[in-house]
Amino acid sequence: MTLKDPFSDGIAAFTSEVRNGALTFEQATQHCLKRIDRLNPRLQAFEHIDHKNALATAAAMDQLLAAGCDLGPLMGIPIAVKDIITVEGMPVTNGSLHPTSHINGDEGSLIKNLRRAGCVILGKTKTVEFALGATGVNEARGTPWNPWDLEEHRIPGGSSSGSAVATAAGMCAFALGTDTGGSIRIPASYNGLFGHKTSMGLWPTDGVFPLSPTLDSIGPLCRSAADAMLIHQHLFKDNDESAALSLCGLRLGKPAQVFFDELDEEVQQCFYAVEKRLLEAGAVVTEIELPESEERNAVFPYIVGSELIATLGVDAFNHAKSKMDSVTAQRAAVGLTTTAEKYIRSVRRHRQLQTVAAQKFSQCDAWIAPTVPMLPMALKEIEDGSLADRALLSSRNTQLANLYGLCAVSMPMQHMAAEPSLPCGFQIMMPLNQDTCLLQISVELQKILGIGPQPDLSSLET
Amino acid sequence: MTLKDPFSDGIAAFTSEVRNGALTFEQATQHCLKRIDRLNPRLQAFEHIDHKNALATAAAMDQLLAAGCDLGPLMGIPIAVKDIITVEGMPVTNGSLHPTSHINGDEGSLIKNLRRAGCVILGKTKTVEFALGATGVNEARGTPWNPWDLEEHRIPGGSSSGSAVATAAGMCAFALGTDTGGSIRIPASYNGLFGHKTSMGLWPTDGVFPLSPTLDSIGPLCRSAADAMLIHQHLFKDNDESAALSLCGLRLGKPAQVFFDELDEEVQQCFYAVEKRLLEAGAVVTEIELPESEERNAVFPYIVGSELIATLGVDAFNHAKSKMDSVTAQRAAVGLTTTAEKYIRSVRRHRQLQTVAAQKFSQCDAWIAPTVPMLPMALKEIEDGSLADRALLSSRNTQLANLYGLCAVSMPMQHMAAEPSLPCGFQIMMPLNQDTCLLQISVELQKILGIGPQPDLSSLET
Repeated sequence: MTLKDPFSDGIAAFTSEVRNGALTFEQATQHCLKRIDRLNPRLQAFEHIDHKNALATAAAMDQLLAAGCDLGPLMGIPIAVKDIITVEGMPVTNGSLHPTSHINGDEGSLIKNLRRAGCVILGKTKTVEFALGATGVNEARGTPWNPWDLEEHRIPGGSSSGSAVATAAGMCAFALGTDTGGSIRIPASYNGLFGHKTSMGLWPTDGVFPLSPTLDSIGPLCRSAADAMLIHQHLFKDNDESAALSLCGLRLGKPAQVFFDELDEEVQQCFYAVEKRLLEAGAVVTEIELPESEERNAVFPYIVGSELIATLGVDAFNHAKSKMDSVTAQRAAVGLTTTAEKYIRSVRRHRQLQTVAAQKFSQCDAWIAPTVPMLPMALKEIEDGSLADRALLSSRNTQLANLYGLCAVSMPMQHMAAEPSLPCGFQIMMPLNQDTCLLQISVELQKILGIGPQPDLSSLET
Repeated sequence: MTLKDPFSDGIAAFTSEVRNGALTFEQATQHCLKRIDRLNPRLQAFEHIDHKNALATAAAMDQLLAAGCDLGPLMGIPIAVKDIITVEGMPVTNGSLHPTSHINGDEGSLIKNLRRAGCVILGKTKTVEFALGATGVNEARGTPWNPWDLEEHRIPGGSSSGSAVATAAGMCAFALGTDTGGSIRIPASYNGLFGHKTSMGLWPTDGVFPLSPTLDSIGPLCRSAADAMLIHQHLFKDNDESAALSLCGLRLGKPAQVFFDELDEEVQQCFYAVEKRLLEAGAVVTEIELPESEERNAVFPYIVGSELIATLGVDAFNHAKSKMDSVTAQRAAVGLTTTAEKYIRSVRRHRQLQTVAAQKFSQCDAWIAPTVPMLPMALKEIEDGSLADRALLSSRNTQLANLYGLCAVSMPMQHMAAEPSLPCGFQIMMPLNQDTCLLQISVELQKILGIGPQPDLSSLET
C-alpha cells in the first residue's frame, strides 16, 4: 500500500502519467492486485481473480508502449468484469450455484473491444444471482460488503454489487456492470460512484447472460463522469449528433409522480442541494407529469420474469430452484405463471411508454430525480425483515428509466448533505441514444459538485 | 356484360388503352360494379360494396387525366380490399360478428398510398374471421364460393377468400390480402391467381387488424406476375439491389422435407411439369435439407394464438367466443393457455429459423414447392368432417415461408396438367426483402408458362 491510488485523478491523468514515465502499467495492476488481496477477504467483491494473466498482460502493455505502439487511453487500465459476462479463460457463475455458463456463450464483442483497447482484466466481480435483484444480496454466493461502513455490513446494491464495491474500494480503475432495472445505477448510488446505464442496443450484449433481452443494457461503474465519457467515446460511437449542451439554459424535468415519494431525509436534502447548484448555473427546472410511472409493477416483473424463465427453461428452473437465492427464485417464478397474453401486453405497454416518454422530452432536455430513495441499509435489516418492504423501493426510480427506454446515469451527491452521509446518487435520464449528450451534461455538473469523497478503508489497509 | 374484361391483358395494357382513348376509368369501374352485381349474390366475395363513391372517384380520375394530370399506372384501377383493412368511409368487420374495428384504427398508409396513386376502391372483401384460417370457411359471415366450380360449393382458401374470388371472377383488377401463414398464397392457389406475400415489414400494416405482428404481411392477389411487379414497383421501393436474375443459371432449391409430402396427384403432376420447363430454360434444381420444417406445429400456433388473444384481450375473447366461427375460436384459444415461456421460446425459435434459412440461401437463389398440397375441396367435405384432417394441410407449405421469414409468391400452374384441373399454385420463396428479384423471376417464368385460364362464369353472366 505504498503506492498512491493511480486512478484517483481519473483515467486521463493516469494515461499521461504513464506516458511521462512516472508509472508503469504493471505497477498500476500490481497496486490493484495488492488492494484486492488485502481488501477482498473482507469486502468480497470478487468471484474470481486472475493475478497471473493480469500481471502478464500489463507487462506486455508496457513493452508494447515502449515499442512505440500506443493503444490509446484505455491501454493498461486494470478493470473488473461482472460475473454474468463471459471472459475467456475465466469461469462464469452468473451469481448462481446452478451451472448456466452455456447460456452466456463465448466471450462477446464488448470484452473483445476492451482487450483490443489494451485493458487488463483483473477478474470477475460478484453479482446477484442472474442479475435479478436491487439490494445486492446473494444467499448462494455471498453478498459483498459496502465499503462505506466497515462496522456494519451494509448492502452494496445490486445486481452489479461486486463491480461497485471493487471500484469504490480502489481495487480497479473501473468495472463493467449490466442494468435491466437499475443494476448499474443502484450500486453506483450506494457506493458513491458514477454509473452509466447505456441506451438499450448501444453497447453489444453478446456473451452476457440474457436476463431480459427486451430491457437489458450494459455500462461502466467508475469514479467520475469524465471517466465514463472517456470509456464511452473510446469504445463506441452513438448516433447523437446534438450540439454539446451547457448547464446554462438546460431544461430539466422533475417528475411529478412516484420518483420523489418516500425519500430518506439525506437523499432529499442532497437532491435539493444539487438542484440549487443547477439553478445557479442557469438550468431551468420544471415539473413534468409522468402518471404512467405508477404502472411499473404491472409491467416490469412480467417482462423480466417471463424472459428469464424462457431462457432457463421451466424444467431447468424447477430443478435448480432449491439451490437458488430464495428471493431471486421467487422473483423469477413470476415467469412460471405469466400467460403469453400478459407478457405480450406488458411488452406492448413498454413500447407505448417509450413513445410517451419521447413526447415528454419535447418539453425538456433531461429528467432528474434521486437514483435510489434511500441510503444503503444494513444487511440484517433486510434479513430480519424489518426493512424488507422498504428495500423493495431500491429499484423504483431506476426501473422506470428502463421501462421508458431511456439512457441514464447516477452521480454521487452525498457530499452535498449538511452532515457526513452514506452515499446517495443523483439520476439524470435522457432519450434513447443520447448517451454522449447525457455524459456531457454529467461532466459539466460534476465540475461544479466535485466527484465526491472516497470511503475510508485505512483500517483494512494496514 | 357487353364490355370485354378490361384487365384480361394486364394493368399495363389497360393503362395504355385509357391513354389511347379506347376506354375510360369510369367504364372500367362500371364494368366491375356490374360484374359484382351479377356475380356476387352467388359468389359472396364482397362484404361491402360502394357503388356511388367508386363511380364518382373513377369519373374524377377521368377528369383529372383529361386535365393533363396523369397519376401513373395505378390511376383509375378498380380494386377491392380485404375486410380486415380499414378504409375510411366503409365498415370494417374483420370477418367477425363481434365488433373489433377499434383495434384496426384509422385508415393506414397503404390505403392512403393507393388513393394517392389514383386507385378506385370498390368495396371490402370477405375474410376468415380475424384472418385466422386457411380454408376460407367463415361460419359467422359466410364462405365465398370458389368460381372454378359453379355446381359444387368448393372452398376459396383463406383467409383472403373474398379478395381471391373477386379477382378470379373479374370483379376487380386486383385485390389486397394479408398473409400471416399463407392467407394470400393459399387463395391464390385455389383460385388460379398470382399472389404476392411481401417481406414482413416491407409494406406498412398500420390500419390492418393485427393477427400476429411478429408474422403479419400484406400484398396483392392479382392476375399475373407482371401486374404484381407493377403494383410493387409503383408503391414501394425495397432494398433489393441485386441484379436481375435470369432463369438460365438460376439455382433453385427443392426442400427435401415436408413440402412434397401427401400431394394431390394433379398438384404433383403440375409441379413437375413446371420444373421441367425451368430446367429447359437453364435453371439448376437441387434438393436442400430443411429438417427444421418439421417444427412448424410446435412454433407457429403459439405465436399467432398468443398475439391474437393479447390483442383481443382474454375477457373480450371469452365474451365474444360464442359469436365467433367455431374453428377460429378453437385456434385462437391456444393463446389462452400458452405460457409466456412457451411464447417467448417460440418467437426465439422463429428468429433462429430466419438465420437457418439465410444460411441455406447461400446454396441457392430461391426455394420452390407446390403452394398448397391439394386442389380446392368441396365445402361439405370439410363440414361433414370427411376431409377435415386433410384440410389442415392447406397452410403447411405456406406457413413455413412465414416461419422462415421469407417473401414468397404463388403462380397458377393448373394448366400444366395433362387433363383440365382445378387450380393449384407453384410457390417460389426468397430471402427477406428480395421481393423485386422474386417478382422478376416470376415474370420470366410466367412468360414461359402463360398466366393460365380464367374460370367459366358464362352461366352466371347471362
